[in-house]
Amino acid sequence: MKDYIIHSEWKVIEDGFNPDNNRISESIFSIGNGHTGQRANFEEKYSGDSLQGNYLAGVYYPDKTRVGWWKNGYPEYFAKILNAANWIGIHLEIEGEELDLATASIQKFRRELDMRTALLTRSFVATLPSGKQVEVVAKRFLSMKQQELGAIQYRLRSLNFSAPVRITSFIDGDVMNEDSNYDEKFWDEVEKEAQGQEVFLCMKTKKTGFYACNGQHTRLLVNGKALVVKPEILPKEKQVATVFELDLKEGQELLVEKFASITSSLHYKKEAMLAHGKQAVQQAQQKGFDQLFAEHCQLWEQKWETADIEIKGDVAAQQGIRFNIFQLMQTYTGDDERLNIGPKGFTGEKYGGVTYWDTEAYCLPFFLGTAPEKVAKNLLMYRYKHLQKAIENAEKLGFNHGAALYPMVTINGEECHNEWEITFEEIHRNGAIAYAISHYINYTGDRQYLAPYGFEVLLGISRFWAQRVNWSEAKQAYVMLGVTGPNEYENNVNNNFHTNKMAVWTLNYTLKVIDYLKRDHPYLFEEMIQKWKFNELQETAVWREIIEKMYFPLDEKSGLYLQQDGFLDKEIIPVQQMNQEERPINQNWSWDRILRSCYIKQADTLQSFYWFQDEFDMETLTRHFDFYESITVHESSLSPCVHGILAARIGRREKAYELYLRTARLDLDDYNNDTEDGLHITSMAGTWMAFVESFGGMRVKNGQLLLDPFIPESWESYSFKLNYRNSHLEIQMSDELKITNHNPGSVSVTIWGKEYELVENQEVVLSKEVKI
Amino acid sequence: MKDYIIHSEWKVIEDGFNPDNNRISESIFSIGNGHTGQRANFEEKYSGDSLQGNYLAGVYYPDKTRVGWWKNGYPEYFAKILNAANWIGIHLEIEGEELDLATASIQKFRRELDMRTALLTRSFVATLPSGKQVEVVAKRFLSMKQQELGAIQYRLRSLNFSAPVRITSFIDGDVMNEDSNYDEKFWDEVEKEAQGQEVFLCMKTKKTGFYACNGQHTRLLVNGKALVVKPEILPKEKQVATVFELDLKEGQELLVEKFASITSSLHYKKEAMLAHGKQAVQQAQQKGFDQLFAEHCQLWEQKWETADIEIKGDVAAQQGIRFNIFQLMQTYTGDDERLNIGPKGFTGEKYGGVTYWDTEAYCLPFFLGTAPEKVAKNLLMYRYKHLQKAIENAEKLGFNHGAALYPMVTINGEECHNEWEITFEEIHRNGAIAYAISHYINYTGDRQYLAPYGFEVLLGISRFWAQRVNWSEAKQAYVMLGVTGPNEYENNVNNNFHTNKMAVWTLNYTLKVIDYLKRDHPYLFEEMIQKWKFNELQETAVWREIIEKMYFPLDEKSGLYLQQDGFLDKEIIPVQQMNQEERPINQNWSWDRILRSCYIKQADTLQSFYWFQDEFDMETLTRHFDFYESITVHESSLSPCVHGILAARIGRREKAYELYLRTARLDLDDYNNDTEDGLHITSMAGTWMAFVESFGGMRVKNGQLLLDPFIPESWESYSFKLNYRNSHLEIQMSDELKITNHNPGSVSVTIWGKEYELVENQEVVLSKEVKI
Repeated sequence: MKDYIIHSEWKVIEDGFNPDNNRISESIFSIGNGHTGQRANFEEKYSGDSLQGNYLAGVYYPDKTRVGWWKNGYPEYFAKILNAANWIGIHLEIEGEELDLATASIQKFRRELDMRTALLTRSFVATLPSGKQVEVVAKRFLSMKQQELGAIQYRLRSLNFSAPVRITSFIDGDVMNEDSNYDEKFWDEVEKEAQGQEVFLCMKTKKTGFYACNGQHTRLLVNGKALVVKPEILPKEKQVATVFELDLKEGQELLVEKFASITSSLHYKKEAMLAHGKQAVQQAQQKGFDQLFAEHCQLWEQKWETADIEIKGDVAAQQGIRFNIFQLMQTYTGDDERLNIGPKGFTGEKYGGVTYWDTEAYCLPFFLGTAPEKVAKNLLMYRYKHLQKAIENAEKLGFNHGAALYPMVTINGEECHNEWEITFEEIHRNGAIAYAISHYINYTGDRQYLAPYGFEVLLGISRFWAQRVNWSEAKQAYVMLGVTGPNEYENNVNNNFHTNKMAVWTLNYTLKVIDYLKRDHPYLFEEMIQKWKFNELQETAVWREIIEKMYFPLDEKSGLYLQQDGFLDKEIIPVQQMNQEERPINQNWSWDRILRSCYIKQADTLQSFYWFQDEFDMETLTRHFDFYESITVHESSLSPCVHGILAARIGRREKAYELYLRTARLDLDDYNNDTEDGLHITSMAGTWMAFVESFGGMRVKNGQLLLDPFIPESWESYSFKLNYRNSHLEIQMSDELKITNHNPGSVSVTIWGKEYELVENQEVVLSKEVKI
Repeated sequence: MKDYIIHSEWKVIEDGFNPDNNRISESIFSIGNGHTGQRANFEEKYSGDSLQGNYLAGVYYPDKTRVGWWKNGYPEYFAKILNAANWIGIHLEIEGEELDLATASIQKFRRELDMRTALLTRSFVATLPSGKQVEVVAKRFLSMKQQELGAIQYRLRSLNFSAPVRITSFIDGDVMNEDSNYDEKFWDEVEKEAQGQEVFLCMKTKKTGFYACNGQHTRLLVNGKALVVKPEILPKEKQVATVFELDLKEGQELLVEKFASITSSLHYKKEAMLAHGKQAVQQAQQKGFDQLFAEHCQLWEQKWETADIEIKGDVAAQQGIRFNIFQLMQTYTGDDERLNIGPKGFTGEKYGGVTYWDTEAYCLPFFLGTAPEKVAKNLLMYRYKHLQKAIENAEKLGFNHGAALYPMVTINGEECHNEWEITFEEIHRNGAIAYAISHYINYTGDRQYLAPYGFEVLLGISRFWAQRVNWSEAKQAYVMLGVTGPNEYENNVNNNFHTNKMAVWTLNYTLKVIDYLKRDHPYLFEEMIQKWKFNELQETAVWREIIEKMYFPLDEKSGLYLQQDGFLDKEIIPVQQMNQEERPINQNWSWDRILRSCYIKQADTLQSFYWFQDEFDMETLTRHFDFYESITVHESSLSPCVHGILAARIGRREKAYELYLRTARLDLDDYNNDTEDGLHITSMAGTWMAFVESFGGMRVKNGQLLLDPFIPESWESYSFKLNYRNSHLEIQMSDELKITNHNPGSVSVTIWGKEYELVENQEVVLSKEVKI
């Protein structure tokens, strides 16, 4: 855990230069616009430790799998979001001496990320080894308005010298991924062009054949006046640059403005990319930095308008929650159904930047609550588009007749992960993808989505479950053998409660969907029957039989549903009673010891109790919470939020607050010592969930929005916003509760168990003893 | 499966050149002498497909582990027996044209391995692209008498030309392992010397610092007359050679004789190796090929004297069993307790040439039955010497107080394997190592071995079991969670019957050993108590409690002990009823499907029923055999032998014969399509076991030798030999049974349930209806 980020309500601030934290800061100060994003690398040369990162959404490379012992069914490759061309480069040489923060002496270093506008500002005074002193202020942003644009304003003032200065403004495509399995480079140069202030570089990925084209217009001003220097062009392999040379006088300020275009063949025709890039940088430099920035800020304002959470009385908490929301909005804008949310977003390479079940379980609720309906819908459409691949994936594992198994890790629908216990067995993910459909419809009311998209996915997943279970003669019930639940500290277990539950739930839900389709969309349904060779009578009979006769591990004595068969054979020692020096166990224990211990990495049985909380009475929820929470080590950043929400639900508000705090500032404080690899983007969505569902007590039951707010004692007030169907709600909580619907029309909301009709702009004020 | 090896009682013969089978033949025709060994590569240049292999016993390299997802406790490296310098090279150039069997046209190609003498002979007629024809006969052997010596006689006759011939007799140290994880080369050159006909090359392994020194004396004879040519020395990096040039006339025969020394720092002081090599090749060339060969043959004669099995009426079976015995004798001579038996012996790289539990479970019985007692003892001593490392290995996994977990794969006592489900969980191996001690003592009567060696190992293993089990509140019994049994088609199961059985058995046996030691070696025992801080009272009390309250999965209804908890939740479909096109399942099914199927790779529960057969009545043995055999796919070459022995035991003689046939010619017929990687050396010991224990019905019960022979119908007769305590028995079986004890003294043997006293050279003849 570190504590060097200065607390501030709207800003993330680093004051003073600490090269040891540089990789962490590079992650924290990352910026992005949903289509491209980058770590907070320096513009000028930096010979110190750094992880360079520029990423293009959806542009990946199939890196050959590295595995010691191959197993049948393993994927051949791991798709990785690529480190792409570095376009921020502005190198400066002063009388032959390079400005390099690793060799200069640095004062007044400050990095500031304005979350309201996604502007990154960095300033410092550097004394070069020769004694020459410069003052630098660099600003940059990635346009939210025009997603292929980035702009930099780089100001340098001579404090104590007059000397010739050489400025190289470049694009460097000669980059690689640090986590490349076989130290390969993934990009080839296609073409480049250089005409004075404008240079362009087009690259192509090996194997996948994605094109990426970077362009830039660089201009130079001295003391505010554009300088007409004849720039030199410096092309190297996979590089292109504009070079300016001038004499800088003591006290003079030099301003380099760089207008960059960043396009990929995911969004532009290969043939047209160069031309489009030229046009884009032309227009950008004509508009200028300030106008581009103003347009960009307008979009951010709209985003905050619907997504902000305000906390009064706790600046650290305020900064934490805003940082999470900010990063999520940078990562995914929801305007392209081919994109998704990687665990590190645009802030690092780890986990390949690809899609996990995090999207359905954590990110979907955030985007449902804070963004237009289409954003969440596009997350569902992403999976719909991968249905055929999911069917092929299941076929590889021996399933047939349209059974679909969605991958554990994917970017294009194909499985990437290659640990058998995860890839082949962590199949509850299939349930999460089905659940997301119901969640979306329950929240939005958009039942149209079921025909054909929702139903087709549900059919494939239901077929999978029906084939994946088997009849146990011994138990006279259906069982599911050889699975791994969300708690990855257990592998290859039998009858994981959560997985069995997801299977039965999916089958049930699909049956209900069929009833709805037959009634409301009979023709469309008939078409789907033909398309999928769906033998309704026969297949649903099997499903009903499974629903009726599925086995769930239950300990009669304690009344506990067990995480899996045999769970109570373990020694049950509460986390609080274990030797705290041995925590986290994933760093201190061998894997086999972890596996046979009772300790749970993240919500597993409780994931079901969270999703299906309305099926259980409060006493049952409490009994299960108490048992499982006492042996959960929360060694995944995705863990505390679900437990926190359940804690709030059963009235354990202090516990809910304690669990919330574990993730709220995870990256800002580098809680797990791994922020240097990138931010925990998908966990951030879990933090939002924990806020809104714990403190706000928000959930939707049978299409009705419920709220059950309380406020942690240390806070004065908080407010959050919710898009819910056609309403836009603002919930303000202090000693009293105020709720306003800012949209036209009215909406019915159940607050503290009582129904209210919220009419446009009519504030409802309620008071209750709610402090914990 | 292939069928190109010509059947012959004492020889392995390949007739005709088939480059497609070259790697297979290179494995099959391998020769070795327990200290060094090599694949049957060609002396002359060969540009076709080949796996070059020369191996030095115990000389390994710690190749950096390759793993996709690291787990705590994984080893850093995989120790690999190295491909060492290639010393057989004799390249020939005729008028500038190289003799290369891949480019010449080949007639009359024949390879012959005389198993009686371990002489490899190869002959062919080659027509070079220029039309020049040569006839070649090459012989070579690795001396069993002088283990650092090898010799080659290479004859070449000109059939249709007179031309200058250039002969390069070389040693090439610039070799690598094909299965190197990161394509590294593992050897550095240390020094070399070249003086005319004698050249020497000393190499050193990276990291491990083993030295290996090769020397050779090459001489040249034309038409039987030594030729005095001034040889040229041709040193390249990591190479050294003697070059001869002469004019060969049509019809003339050229003979190259090469006397080679091969030493490693495992057996010689580094400083003395070069001098020793010089002396060795000097002496060898003085003795000459024939005398060296005669000395070598004498040793082989002695080996066959005590180990041969003769089968009349089935040449293929005869060749098969001799081939297995021959390869085992080449691989391990038992004169060095630091050596062991790798799965591929000296015939290939795969599995790293390191030690598995195969040694205790399969190889030990072979060497007990066929070799002097010290050979088997040295196999035990190998593990004794690794006890400290086994304790460290257990500590890495979280055990303490002297608990020992022997590695799954090792060469120096440290674990090499890195699949968690094997490395951390396949702990029954620890039981096999304990069992081997009891097996050795039961067979030889050498109870002295227990103090201190046997006991110290048993103590470490018992301590491991005592810590590895845990008390289950639910079952009110001790359980063992998270293990993998011998059936690797199940991973991470609870209460594997065999593993639980091995634990209880070890604890029991160790208690008995303690009783014996207290009675017969009280002072030594006291010393060991001190050395190991053994709290006898307390520790044995825990052991007794575990013995008494250990849980074994039992299905009351069927009376079956289950392979593990929940086994009967699986769909049980006998192998015969499955789609035979899907076999072997390890090539056709995904790993998860295999795991949740009922199919068993190799004896697991039946391994216990084999080892502890005297604890069960015939009906219980039969019930378990019928159940488990019906669902066993035998996809390990180690599998059929144990089932075959049990089949014979319960009177299923046809089944026993059928199972025997599955392994008897495994490599000669390339049954599993993988002989190209090397021979299945440890399985060969299983074949011997299957022969002697199935057909011979041999076992030892409470120190008494039992025989229960029968003969398969298709055979006329068979005979095998057994070293048993001080006797050397020859058992001949046809319509009647003849048994002779060739050693002085007498021995009591139970035959077909009746006890006989076998006195030196007094043949006992019995007849019985025994044909199946």
